[in-house]
Amino acid sequence: MINSLLQHKSIRKYKSDKISDELLNEILIAGTKASTTGNMQVYSIIISRDENIKEKLWESHFKQNMVKQAPVVLTFCADFNRFNKWCEQRKAVPGYDNFLSFITAAIDALLVAQNVCIAAEAKGLGICYLGTTTYMADKFINILNLPKFVVPVTAIVLGYPDEAPGLTDRLPLDSVIHFETYKDYSKEDIDKAYFEKESLPQTAELLKINELETLAQIFTEKRYTKKDNIAFSNSLMNVLEKQGFLNHK
Amino acid sequence: MINSLLQHKSIRKYKSDKISDELLNEILIAGTKASTTGNMQVYSIIISRDENIKEKLWESHFKQNMVKQAPVVLTFCADFNRFNKWCEQRKAVPGYDNFLSFITAAIDALLVAQNVCIAAEAKGLGICYLGTTTYMADKFINILNLPKFVVPVTAIVLGYPDEAPGLTDRLPLDSVIHFETYKDYSKEDIDKAYFEKESLPQTAELLKINELETLAQIFTEKRYTKKDNIAFSNSLMNVLEKQGFLNHK
Repeated sequence: MINSLLQHKSIRKYKSDKISDELLNEILIAGTKASTTGNMQVYSIIISRDENIKEKLWESHFKQNMVKQAPVVLTFCADFNRFNKWCEQRKAVPGYDNFLSFITAAIDALLVAQNVCIAAEAKGLGICYLGTTTYMADKFINILNLPKFVVPVTAIVLGYPDEAPGLTDRLPLDSVIHFETYKDYSKEDIDKAYFEKESLPQTAELLKINELETLAQIFTEKRYTKKDNIAFSNSLMNVLEKQGFLNHK
Repeated sequence: MINSLLQHKSIRKYKSDKISDELLNEILIAGTKASTTGNMQVYSIIISRDENIKEKLWESHFKQNMVKQAPVVLTFCADFNRFNKWCEQRKAVPGYDNFLSFITAAIDALLVAQNVCIAAEAKGLGICYLGTTTYMADKFINILNLPKFVVPVTAIVLGYPDEAPGLTDRLPLDSVIHFETYKDYSKEDIDKAYFEKESLPQTAELLKINELETLAQIFTEKRYTKKDNIAFSNSLMNVLEKQGFLNHK
């Protein structure tokens, strides 16, 4: 099992084979055994298989091909709607229209998402996370018809792999762990942490294609720019407000 | 492996046995193979084993016994500090002082946390999440000496189980999944979703002890009250501001 975790690779090319209802059900049952705050299960999972819906999702997931190609897209949402409705039907007054409750529900949704991924990989399926989910949350609310108190926090594509990529590099474990308290990074620590990543052949290639001097510049100038981050931040904050999670202000 | 996920139970009583460095290392290596946004790995894991530090953590984790009893506490942090320092050493201007970047880093930290839990359970260890991490984030920042751009998002205790609890109930899968788009819940859907939970013997016992009429009231009046949620929401927002993640305002 640890072996399965060690072999994790994101899959971006999928066969056209469908996933059977039985298999999907088995994966979701296992996934939803994940820990959740106070066992409240304040999340929902939206299963998209319809071509029309997937076309719309693809459009808002920055037109990444795998969204159309993979047979299933799962969108994991922070969801206090169901819990609030239960409270109201049971003479209880819910107090979950605030930022802490959004974070609590987002944590629930993310732990379940990772459990689903591990279950899927154990069954020979491939997965890839869609970071675009939070960037374009307002679009997914419309496409998936999400009511108040429901916010999409991540999504994955799911299917039978049609590629066998190598393992992705990771920072040395030493660089991401701290003993007892946080030891801030010296200049040498940073050089050491990123040495392997900066030495990879694909890094040299990326620098050449992008005509940039450092790998860090590819992140700041091409992939995750300040301009985009600020626009997405404001959009996501508006989503939290609109979905009812900022009422303590 | 799916079996291991199906057997997940949170463990709240631990033996005094230590976890060997080799085992902890193996679990962390497997854990850190989880997907992360753009492979940026914008998280850090703080390993607490020292009795003095654990005593302080215990105090802020609402004095839950397991925090002192378990040999290891792992605090998972959203961390853009390391990445920002790398950018600055590489002639790149980081634009990650915003809410979207906090959420991105929190997602990274949470997926790694769940991977670590699954690896730990596969090795015969028990785990329990500490939801108190986000409630008291400001305290953990002080105890663990977390610099700007580092925010604790969850923590777990880790050790050899000294109890064998039964499986925890879950809502029927039908109640947490939606096909294609979100189908909002009718009164009957809600009754059906919570029927099993409300029928459990421990629910009857809880109602008697708390002198309340419904299980939902135990959540709203005892466990997760509006008053606490608002206080923790404001505190967590202040933490995000102080740690540098709200600079788009």
